[in-house]
Amino acid sequence: MDRRELVEQIRLKQSYLCVGLDTDVSKIPAHLRQEPDPVLAFNKAIIDATKDLCVAYKINTAFYEAMGLPGWQAMEKTVDYIPKDILTIADAKRGDIGNTSTQYAKAFFEAFHFDAITVAPYMGADSVKPFLAYKDKWTILLGLTSNEGSADFELQQMGGEKLYEKVLRTAAGWDTHNNLMFVIGATQANEFENIRKIVPNHFFLVPGVGAQGGSLQEISQKAMNKDVGLLVNASRAIIYASGKEDFAEAARKVAQEYQVEMASYL
Amino acid sequence: MDRRELVEQIRLKQSYLCVGLDTDVSKIPAHLRQEPDPVLAFNKAIIDATKDLCVAYKINTAFYEAMGLPGWQAMEKTVDYIPKDILTIADAKRGDIGNTSTQYAKAFFEAFHFDAITVAPYMGADSVKPFLAYKDKWTILLGLTSNEGSADFELQQMGGEKLYEKVLRTAAGWDTHNNLMFVIGATQANEFENIRKIVPNHFFLVPGVGAQGGSLQEISQKAMNKDVGLLVNASRAIIYASGKEDFAEAARKVAQEYQVEMASYL
Repeated sequence: MDRRELVEQIRLKQSYLCVGLDTDVSKIPAHLRQEPDPVLAFNKAIIDATKDLCVAYKINTAFYEAMGLPGWQAMEKTVDYIPKDILTIADAKRGDIGNTSTQYAKAFFEAFHFDAITVAPYMGADSVKPFLAYKDKWTILLGLTSNEGSADFELQQMGGEKLYEKVLRTAAGWDTHNNLMFVIGATQANEFENIRKIVPNHFFLVPGVGAQGGSLQEISQKAMNKDVGLLVNASRAIIYASGKEDFAEAARKVAQEYQVEMASYL
Repeated sequence: MDRRELVEQIRLKQSYLCVGLDTDVSKIPAHLRQEPDPVLAFNKAIIDATKDLCVAYKINTAFYEAMGLPGWQAMEKTVDYIPKDILTIADAKRGDIGNTSTQYAKAFFEAFHFDAITVAPYMGADSVKPFLAYKDKWTILLGLTSNEGSADFELQQMGGEKLYEKVLRTAAGWDTHNNLMFVIGATQANEFENIRKIVPNHFFLVPGVGAQGGSLQEISQKAMNKDVGLLVNASRAIIYASGKEDFAEAARKVAQEYQVEMASYL
């Protein structure tokens, strides 16, 4: 899915919501635990209940990896179940020397059929470029993350700017195919106006609303650009809205609240 | 395997060699491709041929992930095949917000039975501590990597020191259970003496000899400490020493050259 198609979906659905499928098997409603694949059954129900309200699903690979092989199986089937007009993001935060990043790109873009992957910047250009080389896929690089630990390195000064600012500025120069996005945490709203000055045109994947406390209104006011330029993710707030048999309806209700609020900012 | 046991193995085998199982299915000798699981068959032969010469195996997860589900299966069986007195390292470079890093730790330390995992530092303390919380397992944090891209951020100045120096110094303060190591690339030999001043006691996992061109002699002279403090990794130079039926013997020959050279520095 290229940028034109993504923006079209956002306008059509009046939504820039990304639903995070951080599916933790221990939090799945009891009645689903009898299913042959409880995680897949849960994800399918969430997808059915929210697919008209969101433009992306983000699969946090850690939750699937923690289950061993059955987790990878559930992830593969989940990706393939998501309708083709919705962006699929592997939230995998990979990154290694060039020949290894090439293997990670192959894993997520080819073996599993994701449209996008999150990537860590620490190791520099040759660790990121193998992902960007897939012109029809998206690379979503960590910029400024939503967690407390962002203060340890990301927010520290590096030669007159902060490390995360240097990452944004440097990586924007690698983006020859217009297929780069950045992760910017919703809890960092006081940095948003500054960030838009550094990278005015890029899309941001914004986690941290909901369970982590970021404000959708503030992000939207400060960081929206002419192509919207935002995918705002909520995971736990949506998928665990209810822990009972009505979990899918409850998820839909929360997703709809986000969508209605988003429509008001568009 | 704790530090005492690791040092004991190094003294016993007169080796601080780590063999990297970056097994690329396209590079496996033709005669093994008929096996039901060619990657596993290849790895078993390499392990059988080198297990008396090395103290660790490092599995680069990217190469297994690139194969999809069969890759994860081959990885699981490979870890379980490695003798228990040899350290098993998942070279996975994971790291995310706390609740997600907890899932990654569970994946590699519990679902798969690794002794150690490599972790990326960009997101700070709460992205690393869930790994360190496994007292009987090792967390191996990226410090200064072997690739060209290390110049982009790791080697840049941050408040009077380089970013990687700040990472080493900061992370050493998180190491309350003495179960932290650092990745220091062999190609960065001119930084080794400086690095030993910052973290004199920690073990380093050193990739970059062999295919990437780092010098075993220079690393050993500059960075060995009283507990040796080094695990030097070679991957491609050993496992692809021959692409023919004699690949395991050829791998043993190269591993033995490393071991003999290491013994001379111990």
